[in-house]
Order: sequence, then structure tokens, then C-alpha cells
Amino acid sequence: MHAIQTLDARTIIDAGIAEAERIGNPTNIAVVDASGCLLAFARMDDAWRGSVDIAIGKAWTARAFDVETKALAKLAQPGADLYGIHASNGAKVMIFACGMPIKEGETVIGAVGVSGGTGKQDEGVAEAAAQAFARG
Amino acid sequence: MHAIQTLDARTIIDAGIAEAERIGNPTNIAVVDASGCLLAFARMDDAWRGSVDIAIGKAWTARAFDVETKALAKLAQPGADLYGIHASNGAKVMIFACGMPIKEGETVIGAVGVSGGTGKQDEGVAEAAAQAFARG
Amino acid sequence: MHAIQTLDARTIIDAGIAEAERIGNPTNIAVVDASGCLLAFARMDDAWRGSVDIAIGKAWTARAFDVETKALAKLAQPGADLYGIHASNGAKVMIFACGMPIKEGETVIGAVGVSGGTGKQDEGVAEAAAQAFARG
Amino acid sequence: MHAIQTLDARTIIDAGIAEAERIGNPTNIAVVDASGCLLAFARMDDAWRGSVDIAIGKAWTARAFDVETKALAKLAQPGADLYGIHASNGAKVMIFACGMPIKEGETVIGAVGVSGGTGKQDEGVAEAAAQAFARG
Repeated sequence: MHAIQTLDARTIIDAGIAEAERIGNPTNIAVVDASGCLLAFARMDDAWRGSVDIAIGKAWTARAFDVETKALAKLAQPGADLYGIHASNGAKVMIFACGMPIKEGETVIGAVGVSGGTGKQDEGVAEAAAQAFARG
Repeated sequence: MHAIQTLDARTIIDAGIAEAERIGNPTNIAVVDASGCLLAFARMDDAWRGSVDIAIGKAWTARAFDVETKALAKLAQPGADLYGIHASNGAKVMIFACGMPIKEGETVIGAVGVSGGTGKQDEGVAEAAAQAFARG
Repeated sequence: MHAIQTLDARTIIDAGIAEAERIGNPTNIAVVDASGCLLAFARMDDAWRGSVDIAIGKAWTARAFDVETKALAKLAQPGADLYGIHASNGAKVMIFACGMPIKEGETVIGAVGVSGGTGKQDEGVAEAAAQAFARG
Repeated sequence: MHAIQTLDARTIIDAGIAEAERIGNPTNIAVVDASGCLLAFARMDDAWRGSVDIAIGKAWTARAFDVETKALAKLAQPGADLYGIHASNGAKVMIFACGMPIKEGETVIGAVGVSGGTGKQDEGVAEAAAQAFARG
């Protein structure tokens, strides 16, 4: 299995930052490896301090359940099958958009998490970041 | 009181794994004893890492309140009587399906928790596991 | 990289239990994979309940630092280089004997943690468990 | 007050990585700003997973008390004035070497934390990192 390496994480974060700068949305970007362990993180100038933990949590969550956190959001609503999951795992589980698995073929080898702007803005950043690895 | 023993826990987990393999749903299975203390645990290959904590939490919860977590889910919804209970006990309380008490007659002597697939899949696994003890 | 699988974890735990029974030392045995995530756990009848968390913590620690926890103990004493490390990582770091990395050649692919008896007893159990994989 | 910016954090981390590579000591490097909030982080390939939290904690601690964590270590030993401080602040306080304040003149404007090798190795990395900002 190909592992995400430090340099890959840098590539992923730089692609995210470039997109975030393009749309004027200072944000936080975290990359975890296949074990869910933090590999790299960057907070852009003026990005929310409270989003550091959220970005890291989104990346962790996307790998912990091999799922986009956006999909998890639906399952975690009141009345849905996984309502309450956000409190599990020491409340590291983030259940809103912008945690995305990074795949090699069908295998999840890590994940990226983005937090700082609106959901829609962060989503563009997360996609740009995740795609940078696919291209790299 | 008959206590669940290590060998019982093994039987329970093996029955759950057999059912999970049958339906192609890799999952996590935890068994706690009457004191809510973990007795045995297994994560099947490719089961979600984020579900380890959830499976253990479901088993703990099912014994802590002597209830199927599925029933607790209804009581824990916004507006319902126990809304907020998921944050108690250090957030160990899991409020979605697949934590099941293990009984001897009417006495709860332990519990099993399953997490890894959809609610419906996990439920079949948890039932197969819980019944293994009844038969054993 | 070879990954530890559920069946390997079972083999490891069974070898540990056999040794623990041989010396009459009921104990707890945990196995984590290369990501530090719990793969399997067993508590023997009459083993200490307080040692569940310790066994899991030892296995996690042995992988987190790729070291026998026995070696870490020396470094973590008052006055030594890593004094205070036990409080890091949410206090999951165990700094006494019986967490052992499981290796394939030079690569750490998981770890085993044992807790329940005296250090010396647990050490024999952990060694028997770790060696079962090497043989397997 | 001059604030540490994302680009500064990158410079600091890159200088640390360069030194770590020079001495063959894969490590984790974290940079916090004047508020103690994480600004950037990198884990080098093969660096200890358990040291992610420690590197971040060292950086946080160095700013929280405006002190090198090496100096804090002495004060935190059994019998010394601050014995027990490692358990405060949710156990984020790291009391061994390699958390260093980053200063502009006499003003602490952030901090760097390094964890992964022996104390002596990490110290060279932390110094190289901290000095990169002074020069930058």
C-alpha cells in the first residue's frame, strides 16, 4: 500500500491554501495518514482559532469511517441511524461537511479536513486539496 | 448469579463474526460483563476504526441502563425524555441501535455491542451474538 | 507491508492466555494494529478490571513510540529525559513493562499489551503472545 | 506586535526539518502563535505517532508559561516548586525539553515544539527552527 508521506501532505495543503486564497476564505487544513494520525496542518492568517480542532477532527473522522463527513451528517441527524455518533470517540467525530478520504484506487490511505469558512467554501478547498494528491 | 466468563464472551463474539461474514459486513464486537467492564473485543478486517469505541460504548450502555440501545435512541431524541443523555458518563453512552443486554432469565448479566455497518446489518449481528449465549 | 489481521490477533491472545493459565496469573491482553487501533482484547476470568485500560494503553504505547514500554519506563522516571510523558496523549501512555511491539523483520506492524499480574508474570505472558505471531 | 504568520510557521518548520534530516532524526514539529493556538504542524516520515500530541503540547507549554520546557522540567520534578503542573490544563503541559518560545526582542510571539528523537537530538532541531524565525 502506498502511504501518504510528509511531502504529499505538503502538496495537499498547498493546493488547499491556493484555492482558499483564490476565493478569499482563510481556513484550517489538516491531513491524516491511513492510521488517522496527524501528518500535517496549516492555519492560514486570520482563520478561526476554533476551527483548528474541527479541521483535525474532520480529517480523523473521514478516515475513521472511510466516508465524507458530509455523508455522515445525514446519518447523524436526530431521528437518523447514527444520531449521537458525534459524542463518540472522545467527541473527535465531526459530522458536517469537509472531511474527505484520500484514496489510491479504492483504498483509503488518509484524509483531509478543512474548516474555517462556510460549508460551501470549505468544500471547494477540501476538494482542491484531495485532488492534488490524486494528481501528484 | 451466573457470570459471563471469558469463554462465553468468545462464543458470543464468534457467533457475531460468523453472522457478519455471512452478510459481508465487517464489524466490531464488544462484550461486557455484569459490571459493564470489557470482557472481550474483536475488530474484523476492514471494519471501521471509528467503530471500536462505539461498539464498546454500546455494550457498556446496554448494561448501564439494562436496555437495548435501540430503545434508548427513541428516548434520547430532541424533545424526548432523555435528550442529552449521550453526553453523560464521559460521553460513553451510545444512543443508536445494536447494544443488547445479555440475560439469564430476567437478569441482565452482561451486554454485547456491535458497530461497523448499517443499523440493520449490525442488528442482525448483535442478535446472533446475544442468542449464542442463550443457547450456549 | 503485512498487516496484522483479526485471526493473527486471536492467535496472539490465545498464546498469551495459555501462558497466563500455565503460571496461574489471570490477566488482560490487548492487540493493536499498525495504526494503534484496537484489534482484539480478552480479559481472563478474575483478572483485574482496572487493568483493561492499562493493557490497551500498553499496546497503544508500544506502537505509538515503537518501543517496549519497559524501556520507556526508564526514560520516564523523575529526572530522566521523558519524565511527564505518561500524561501526554490523553494519559493513554503507559510507562511500565508489558507493552511490546510486534514486528515483521524491522517493521513494527502492531503491538500487544498485558496487564493483570506482577510485572514479571505479565512479561512472560506478553513475550509468549508476541512470539506467537513471529511463529504464526 | 509582530504576529507569527502562516508563512513564518512554514519557514520555522522547514528549518527544523532540514536539521532533523541532517542528523537523521525523524521528528514532529509544531508552531503556535502568541495565543498558543496551533499555526502549523508537520510529522516527518517514520516519526513517532505518539509524539504528535507531545510536540503540540510542548509548543503550547512554551508559550503558556513563556519558558523553555527544559527549564520547566527542573521546576516540575518531585520535590520542586511546580511538581504536578503536568496534570494541569487538561494535561497539555509538557515538562521535558524542546518546547521553545519564539521571541521578537523580549516579546514572546509564539513557540515551537519538537518531539521524536532523544532529548539532545530534538533540542538541536528546536533551536534550528526557532532561530530560523529570528533570521527570517
